[in-house]
Amino acid sequence: MLLVTYEKAGQCRLGALDRETKTVIPLEQMGRNVPNDMLELIRAGEEAMTVCRKALQAGSMNRLSLSEICLRAPIVRPPRNIICIGKNYRAHANEIKSLPSGAADVPDQPIVFTKATTTVIGPKEPIPSYLDTTGTTDYEGELGVVIGRGGREITRAEAMSHVFGYTILNDVTSRALQKRHGQWFLGKSLDGFCPMGPAILTADEVANVGDLCVQTHVNGELRQQGCVSELIFDIPTLIETLSAVMTLQAGDIIATGTPAGVGAGFTPPRYLKPGDVVSVSIAPIGVLDNPVE
Amino acid sequence: MLLVTYEKAGQCRLGALDRETKTVIPLEQMGRNVPNDMLELIRAGEEAMTVCRKALQAGSMNRLSLSEICLRAPIVRPPRNIICIGKNYRAHANEIKSLPSGAADVPDQPIVFTKATTTVIGPKEPIPSYLDTTGTTDYEGELGVVIGRGGREITRAEAMSHVFGYTILNDVTSRALQKRHGQWFLGKSLDGFCPMGPAILTADEVANVGDLCVQTHVNGELRQQGCVSELIFDIPTLIETLSAVMTLQAGDIIATGTPAGVGAGFTPPRYLKPGDVVSVSIAPIGVLDNPVE
Repeated sequence: MLLVTYEKAGQCRLGALDRETKTVIPLEQMGRNVPNDMLELIRAGEEAMTVCRKALQAGSMNRLSLSEICLRAPIVRPPRNIICIGKNYRAHANEIKSLPSGAADVPDQPIVFTKATTTVIGPKEPIPSYLDTTGTTDYEGELGVVIGRGGREITRAEAMSHVFGYTILNDVTSRALQKRHGQWFLGKSLDGFCPMGPAILTADEVANVGDLCVQTHVNGELRQQGCVSELIFDIPTLIETLSAVMTLQAGDIIATGTPAGVGAGFTPPRYLKPGDVVSVSIAPIGVLDNPVE
Repeated sequence: MLLVTYEKAGQCRLGALDRETKTVIPLEQMGRNVPNDMLELIRAGEEAMTVCRKALQAGSMNRLSLSEICLRAPIVRPPRNIICIGKNYRAHANEIKSLPSGAADVPDQPIVFTKATTTVIGPKEPIPSYLDTTGTTDYEGELGVVIGRGGREITRAEAMSHVFGYTILNDVTSRALQKRHGQWFLGKSLDGFCPMGPAILTADEVANVGDLCVQTHVNGELRQQGCVSELIFDIPTLIETLSAVMTLQAGDIIATGTPAGVGAGFTPPRYLKPGDVVSVSIAPIGVLDNPVE
């Protein structure tokens, strides 16, 4: 299923996206046991998902045209900071090693930092680059892993059974603030600096997550390209490493890292400016488009 | 007021601590407009606090003896990660500059990182050092600032009016993991690695926050001592710096940094081990005692 959060008449609701017909099937018609909020649906576990799948197969549901609703970030307000992995594609680790904020080359352990919950915006929402008065706003297209069943000491072998699904993230970064404040958190946590969406593709529809490929375009020009199979630390390793010491929770989001091609990697750097449009795409999840303000 | 969250009959409730009589006055007797949850009380704003203060002054309330209840962390589960400031006391910045994780000496801008929400434990709860298989678990006693009214672009001049109150935190850290994972987040985010409490002292009762002094004892031996007036970046500067780019929210917790005297600063290092007891105290907030497991 491609799950979306959409807004209609000022309220956030949950739907299943049918890309062929460009319609959304509201989940509220699936009965009282199906929550109408993404986090609650994730927490409700497999039972609620089975109800949804059966109802969708049975067909004949009310549908809304994509043109009459507004898609929001699938998880509008995460229950805690987004967990991010730094330098997890070899070519990207190399392109930024010469930058002031990039100390090491290819890491031998996952680099883990976070983005504030208030960074999250939805598809089409503007990225407020004006908040970054240093003029060094940069894009980082990434695959986001959404945790379903939480836990601690999850092994590599069990890890994928804890994944609810996958989404697209743009880990927008102020390069100057990332460096200025020693640790990366603040330069990664400007309001609106985490576009997310347009959907969560449930894990059951992903045969091999390594086959998913991330592309980032700026104003139609391809800037980043990388497949999940190229990750230095793959998803099971990330889940094992994190959960070895901290309890992962339903709804946690792990941003898996960005491929080479960020603006800071060019000479001179090609940072985002008002009027630009950044599109991060991962088939078959979709395209995450955001204008820069 | 010294506000506490306590547990009775398996439920978390809100109370005002009267240290002289060693009793807690349950806030639930103050009427329906006073929430019975710390985050909701903070979000309710000045009106609810005024009701509480008047009721307390009117006197003659039911009281519970401290011996019949269990104090929890004042904010049992923060709504997002705890915002932490690194190397904010000069002597501490110097003692750790030679450590692998300490790159710079005294920072010229605040160093900002976070701790996961799942780190929070209450007074007397054990710190699970067994989760840190590197054997490098260290203490960091700190003053925690609890944000009341949220906002963005809060100036230094306005900053203190956004503070709800103050608490005590122990920013427990695995020194080896802090270094191993490049950024500090994971080494700071082991389950149970953020004891907090025993109370939140409301800002109206703190004439000059600079006068508050932090002391950390391990097994009765004084290890850390520093006053808030010695902070390199004072509280108004921290609030201004953070809110310049990110919206602060009611209930956000800012850990202001730790004084010199951490275990890693000794030669050889004096890390925590099972059986130790760490006490962080800040008069007149109280004492935060935690055994190490």
